[in-house]
Amino acid sequence: MTARTPDSARDIPEATVARLPVYLRALTGLAEGGTTTCSSEELAASAGVNSAKLRKDLSYLGSYGTRGVGYDVEYLRYQIAREIGVTHDWPVVIVGIGNLGHALANYSGFRSRGFRVVALLDADPSRHDEVVAGLDVRSFEDLESIVAENDVSIGVIATPAVAAQAVADRMVAAGITSILNFAPSVLSVPDGVDVRKVDLSIELQILAYHEQRKSVAPAGEVSAT
Amino acid sequence: MTARTPDSARDIPEATVARLPVYLRALTGLAEGGTTTCSSEELAASAGVNSAKLRKDLSYLGSYGTRGVGYDVEYLRYQIAREIGVTHDWPVVIVGIGNLGHALANYSGFRSRGFRVVALLDADPSRHDEVVAGLDVRSFEDLESIVAENDVSIGVIATPAVAAQAVADRMVAAGITSILNFAPSVLSVPDGVDVRKVDLSIELQILAYHEQRKSVAPAGEVSAT
Repeated sequence: MTARTPDSARDIPEATVARLPVYLRALTGLAEGGTTTCSSEELAASAGVNSAKLRKDLSYLGSYGTRGVGYDVEYLRYQIAREIGVTHDWPVVIVGIGNLGHALANYSGFRSRGFRVVALLDADPSRHDEVVAGLDVRSFEDLESIVAENDVSIGVIATPAVAAQAVADRMVAAGITSILNFAPSVLSVPDGVDVRKVDLSIELQILAYHEQRKSVAPAGEVSAT
Repeated sequence: MTARTPDSARDIPEATVARLPVYLRALTGLAEGGTTTCSSEELAASAGVNSAKLRKDLSYLGSYGTRGVGYDVEYLRYQIAREIGVTHDWPVVIVGIGNLGHALANYSGFRSRGFRVVALLDADPSRHDEVVAGLDVRSFEDLESIVAENDVSIGVIATPAVAAQAVADRMVAAGITSILNFAPSVLSVPDGVDVRKVDLSIELQILAYHEQRKSVAPAGEVSAT
């Protein structure tokens, strides 16, 4: 049923990979609204990209839609989810249970996309009494046993910047091969380990760039009334 | 001193704009480590891009470094910060003070990049007694007066998905022209208003894609021992 052709294991460009979750979110929104088929233009508008780029991206998945009908929303969701791997169950550990760690532990968007938070770890013993999102906060010393018992390959770092490299080193030694880093620091990891950084201020800086451009626009462009 | 040539107001490609904050963060790291000059290769490695792309990006700012010396770290920081607009003071309001709103209110990375959180708003009256990051949580009804008094142009939405569009509509009506949306929903806004979306699960999905590829790699590639 779900046999993969050898062709589907080919590499997809990194920029396309980064957009697939955005398409998946847009398709989920359409499905929840009762839409069963959509044109590439509708899907592109929901996802915030242009439709030519969308069609090109989906062609890597072998999805071309049906002329005059468009894409089958449920089937395309399935194809993208399978390609990304979110039909899989991904056990995840979060290290650093401050404000951000709390928010991440409670974030509903992880579970609905196949990510199951199996443990929350913090180096501060005073946090070990807390229960967050139904999980006990545990000692960072338990990392190795938790990773082994739950077959964890993905770790999330939500510690202060100064602690992040040491946490990453321990994660890698424990067998974790993908790290999502929310700490404002650049991590050094061995080949074969993937790191993605999230800097919550970067998107704000991009907005500021455009705000600054608006404020220096010629006066004639400011008022359209 | 800081006169801008007309040339510096030209449009920079969007992909370059998105990387400038990453370079700024890498340069700040180098400066804090005591580095005063760096090669494009060093800076590219810190920022996680290739050096040809870095040089091309910086050429839009008129920064070419000095042959055999490289870039002056402090001066390049200043050039990028000025280009992005983070030498500016940007008053920001955050709406939705749940776990994520708490984390954002406490996020040190905003203040250090020129973003000043001037108010925290929540629709839930039971939250209005709280003080978060030194600010009183206030009623959403105060949005218009806060925006007007503080000349706020940037709003952050950290509400549940179902509330996000109504919050965005009120923000736009109050005069906000840039919105950073953490809610998992696509916002519809008038022309002239910029929206950036942050989906905390998207980076995890990109990691999952690569993890899945690792797990289907031919057996011979898995063990290197």
